[in-house]
Amino acid sequence: MAQDHDEVENGFNSSRNDDGHHHHDKKDKNEGEGGKEAEEFSVERAFDGKEVPSWRKQLTIRAFVVSFVLSVLFTFIVMKLNLTTGIIPSLNVSAGLLGFFFVKTWTKFLENSRILRQPFTRQENTVIQTCVVASSGIAFSGGFGSYLLGMSDRIAIQSEDTNLGYKNLSLTWIIGFLFVVSFLGLFSVVPLRKIMIIDFKLTYPSGTATAYLINSFHTTAGAKLAKKQVRTLGKFFSFSFLWGFFQWFFTAGDNCGFVSFPTFGLKAYEYRFYFDFSAIYVGVGMICPYIINISVLLGGILSWGLMWPLIEKRKGDWYSADLSPTSLQGLQGYKVFISIALILGDGLYNFCKVLSRTLVGLFYQTAKLSYDDQRRTRLFLKDQIPTWFAISGYVAIAIVSIIVLPHIFHQLKWYHVLVIYLFAPTLAFCNAYGCGLTDWSLASTYGKLAIFTIGAWAGSSHGGVLAGLAACGVMMNIVSTASDLTQDFKTGYLTLASPRSMFVSQVIGTAIGCIVSPCVFWLFYKAFDDLGVPGSEYAAPFAMVYRNMAKLGVEGFSALPKNCLLLCYVLFGAAIVINLIRDSIRKEWARFIPLPMAMAIPFYLGPYFAIDMCVGSLLLFIWEKIDKAKADAFGPAVASGLICGDGIWSLPSSILALAKVQPPMCMKFLSRRTNARVDKFLGF
Amino acid sequence: MAQDHDEVENGFNSSRNDDGHHHHDKKDKNEGEGGKEAEEFSVERAFDGKEVPSWRKQLTIRAFVVSFVLSVLFTFIVMKLNLTTGIIPSLNVSAGLLGFFFVKTWTKFLENSRILRQPFTRQENTVIQTCVVASSGIAFSGGFGSYLLGMSDRIAIQSEDTNLGYKNLSLTWIIGFLFVVSFLGLFSVVPLRKIMIIDFKLTYPSGTATAYLINSFHTTAGAKLAKKQVRTLGKFFSFSFLWGFFQWFFTAGDNCGFVSFPTFGLKAYEYRFYFDFSAIYVGVGMICPYIINISVLLGGILSWGLMWPLIEKRKGDWYSADLSPTSLQGLQGYKVFISIALILGDGLYNFCKVLSRTLVGLFYQTAKLSYDDQRRTRLFLKDQIPTWFAISGYVAIAIVSIIVLPHIFHQLKWYHVLVIYLFAPTLAFCNAYGCGLTDWSLASTYGKLAIFTIGAWAGSSHGGVLAGLAACGVMMNIVSTASDLTQDFKTGYLTLASPRSMFVSQVIGTAIGCIVSPCVFWLFYKAFDDLGVPGSEYAAPFAMVYRNMAKLGVEGFSALPKNCLLLCYVLFGAAIVINLIRDSIRKEWARFIPLPMAMAIPFYLGPYFAIDMCVGSLLLFIWEKIDKAKADAFGPAVASGLICGDGIWSLPSSILALAKVQPPMCMKFLSRRTNARVDKFLGF
Repeated sequence: MAQDHDEVENGFNSSRNDDGHHHHDKKDKNEGEGGKEAEEFSVERAFDGKEVPSWRKQLTIRAFVVSFVLSVLFTFIVMKLNLTTGIIPSLNVSAGLLGFFFVKTWTKFLENSRILRQPFTRQENTVIQTCVVASSGIAFSGGFGSYLLGMSDRIAIQSEDTNLGYKNLSLTWIIGFLFVVSFLGLFSVVPLRKIMIIDFKLTYPSGTATAYLINSFHTTAGAKLAKKQVRTLGKFFSFSFLWGFFQWFFTAGDNCGFVSFPTFGLKAYEYRFYFDFSAIYVGVGMICPYIINISVLLGGILSWGLMWPLIEKRKGDWYSADLSPTSLQGLQGYKVFISIALILGDGLYNFCKVLSRTLVGLFYQTAKLSYDDQRRTRLFLKDQIPTWFAISGYVAIAIVSIIVLPHIFHQLKWYHVLVIYLFAPTLAFCNAYGCGLTDWSLASTYGKLAIFTIGAWAGSSHGGVLAGLAACGVMMNIVSTASDLTQDFKTGYLTLASPRSMFVSQVIGTAIGCIVSPCVFWLFYKAFDDLGVPGSEYAAPFAMVYRNMAKLGVEGFSALPKNCLLLCYVLFGAAIVINLIRDSIRKEWARFIPLPMAMAIPFYLGPYFAIDMCVGSLLLFIWEKIDKAKADAFGPAVASGLICGDGIWSLPSSILALAKVQPPMCMKFLSRRTNARVDKFLGF
Repeated sequence: MAQDHDEVENGFNSSRNDDGHHHHDKKDKNEGEGGKEAEEFSVERAFDGKEVPSWRKQLTIRAFVVSFVLSVLFTFIVMKLNLTTGIIPSLNVSAGLLGFFFVKTWTKFLENSRILRQPFTRQENTVIQTCVVASSGIAFSGGFGSYLLGMSDRIAIQSEDTNLGYKNLSLTWIIGFLFVVSFLGLFSVVPLRKIMIIDFKLTYPSGTATAYLINSFHTTAGAKLAKKQVRTLGKFFSFSFLWGFFQWFFTAGDNCGFVSFPTFGLKAYEYRFYFDFSAIYVGVGMICPYIINISVLLGGILSWGLMWPLIEKRKGDWYSADLSPTSLQGLQGYKVFISIALILGDGLYNFCKVLSRTLVGLFYQTAKLSYDDQRRTRLFLKDQIPTWFAISGYVAIAIVSIIVLPHIFHQLKWYHVLVIYLFAPTLAFCNAYGCGLTDWSLASTYGKLAIFTIGAWAGSSHGGVLAGLAACGVMMNIVSTASDLTQDFKTGYLTLASPRSMFVSQVIGTAIGCIVSPCVFWLFYKAFDDLGVPGSEYAAPFAMVYRNMAKLGVEGFSALPKNCLLLCYVLFGAAIVINLIRDSIRKEWARFIPLPMAMAIPFYLGPYFAIDMCVGSLLLFIWEKIDKAKADAFGPAVASGLICGDGIWSLPSSILALAKVQPPMCMKFLSRRTNARVDKFLGF
């Protein structure tokens, strides 16, 4: 769900103390952070003595070595999240912290050996940050958990529609595909840079937050705190990694180990209510705002606690009793289509909302210039990237792409791609602008738009499903990178990094991502045969969801089981109504209204990861009650440690699986009666 | 092992920062705490304004209500420890803390409702403490995990020597037995009271520590700290209780649940190396000095890691290969007899050492009297208990006992009992004096003495095994209560409690213990059919050890398997040599020498609980590294919480077992191969 998580992710970005993505509603929409901060204090005065290196000097080899290491790390983490639930929290803080830590250690080491040529600057830090964001962004927008996997034979077999076409995944064409589509977003954003940052003074909350983090690292007190935070991160990283390792020993066989621990009993386990002891989702829960965690849990209770058991009772009436449990004609169909309805309802609402706000926003501008703003603007405008360069780059890549893509996907014609590329810059602008205002990227919604339009245009008989999914990939890559990279430019603006060095860093990061992401995906894909199978460790729920969205677009509603369409309409409407209520009531109440997008995720997967997340949330809540200052300073570090440790454990774990090293034991959970039978069988 | 744990327990008592029971060695043996403290500050001046209530007023109804509640609580805890490993840490701190908490809450409540007649004094606190110690002492000295259980048919069948006699346990005769033997120690101690406390000024480290705790509670700052400690205790109590409850759900069947978690793999589990997640032993490990934990672990590694695997290789050579695994002719015999050898070696050494020191100690006395001492002595001597009362009480109970005991145990003749009662007061004096000097009660050693002498006297053909075990019970009860109650008198002396009120409290406490302990034991005995079976949850290792000691005394070494006697000699000698080394080298090195008594416990049981204890130890160690002050203030409260919570969980757990409510699930651990077979069998 490369993009759905984008949305949710950006929801998460909008900081812990908020209810998702609406915390700018009550503010004057055009108040930049510049105006606010000038009244209070000046960040740049603190850096007055420090020289800003030239853009070439900001691009050091050490920065790209660190970026590469971190890119691999974060690609593993994002891929694991992609392929388990599709929920991806903001990893900006961890990336910033770890980047700082690596380079600082490196420069310290060189300083001690007296061969340090260049001190570590915040501009260099921003370059690393940008490169890592660009490369791990590909792990989202590459669709490894959504459209790309949705094309594969594995998902087509699961979905029982191999007749609608599938494409065997292979490392070579995935890398080729990513290279031809991923750089377009980059070039489409370059000319908009100045408008968004200087003229419109857009907020970009995540980009701003990252910039403040980086600025703070490079003050003395900030560096001290950062060191402590890194130590905390390291501790929890080790714990989380070792915990993953320990768990591994008990997973010989299906339904073995802590991941299938029936914490609340076997009946609850059957309906996926259990705590699965996964450190990564406990960490995710600590980073996500409370309302996201609550929404996910609520969605889980609504679906697996209420709707599915009720629908199951209609077995034989609403749907045939002798279908396989994974058949989309049966209960599985309700799960998939109802969650699609909820996601589309929420997506449509937010599309309209953000678009209308974008249009309204375009009419207002302010022009207060503080000292910080002046200095930043001067440096931002010093190193120009010529517009002719950006446009010719875009056109050149588009032509290559139009020629190459139909060779990769025979169902996708050259005129489909051409049409996408004509509209893409406009949509990229909309998304970058909307994201700047609301911190909410609509990349997945634009992707879905492409699925339905191009899918319907190609038509069922001409492989519309595959054409739709491929078009989704093309669209999502452009739109998603556009918003990500404008965020980066904002970060660069606030840390006085040169736009040129940012651009180079983005190009290098994107290239790294285009190679690393498919390779990491391939490791998972080869190591875990049950990747994409519902109920398995790597269920990748959005692959099935995306494939079925494409099918809906091509075939209409004919294939849905009884009453499923009705339920879909109800939940589609509910998603819109819930959003309307959120936006119409007062803010202090609005923050208690759940987010339909977050609610939809457990519909298909089950609420177990919601319980992990709520545990993380609860731990943070208790910590905040005991020691608010400490929790605020170290909470993100603890969460990042938990996420990174478990995420990186998936590297050795998939290598072990590839090498056919099997765990020695199985921790099994049996009912009393079954246990008695087993004991008798084993001759105890 | 009522008494072995007494020894170990008193070893534990001698405070966290010490190496067991030797920390008085280098001090002037006759320096009372009075002298020391007069130089520094006066405790009693702080209480100058407060009136000491008369001895009758120290005995309130509320005190005995609280005492009864705490007695039941601590009897459960002690019984659980008795029946699992026999290691019992000092629970004085928890008793003091909880007693203070209950009465304080009660008086606070009454104060608020303005009907409080009498404020809560430290004397009343001491009365509660004394009553609880007396009653839970019976849970030790009653021998429910050692001599009494060793008489039963269950252990006789395990030990394959039903021909040597057994006695079916029944609640009525156990209560009768305890009533006729438990009060003798009390009366034997009363006349010695003044000599021990006033004349010899013995230290009684545990009694002194408890007194300081109680005194501190009744100062303002102390009360505040105590309140915080109680809150910590409460938190960990709940956690530990709920954890016990949670674990229960997964224990349907043998080898199910966290208690059989092969933390270090299945091979290590086979040799009982695993962490069994029991909060009670983690707590015990936090209270015990580090050297005890290390000793226990070392003993476990030596036995289950080295000796047993090596002996097992001689199967078919040293012992017959087709014996049942519990046969004492096989490996089990080595385990039992080698641990007996180690225990006897350590016991003999300490008996000689403490006895010689007692004799030496009798020749030295000092007579410095500080303000505190004067005030305490005056109050201690104010309320006298006439010597004629004590002597006639002793004689009367002895006569009843001589008549009744042979009716309970037909193998024990009236002249056996008479001889015991003639020697008992001397031995009681020795033990009380030795304990005052070294904090080390030798009750179990005196008990073993009785087993061997009376057993041999009665002879094999006249049921010498049972006679020996019964004699052990009689002896242990007298000797153990004598030292416990002199400790209490010391506590009373230091808190200005009247000896009369102490005596009454002891009588009431002993009576409570004589009824509550057998009932609690009976609950366990009826609820868990596998009580006393090696490898089960309630293995009660010392029942088997005591029975076989009696057998050794009666039958000699003829029944031992090949080379077992040789190994026994070696370890008997090693125990003495280790002790000699401890006592001869310098103190800073001596604290690294392990204690043979502690090493012997895992010989029979396996090192799993040693791992729990070391985990507790490690947690405390880390805590001390991070925040020494906090660890010192709250460590004992955390440990007590863990111990009390898990201990009290055994009440509902045994009630559930009695009511035949079975847990719903089994958490099972299978090897990969077995798991594949099971999955096939279950048709997955």
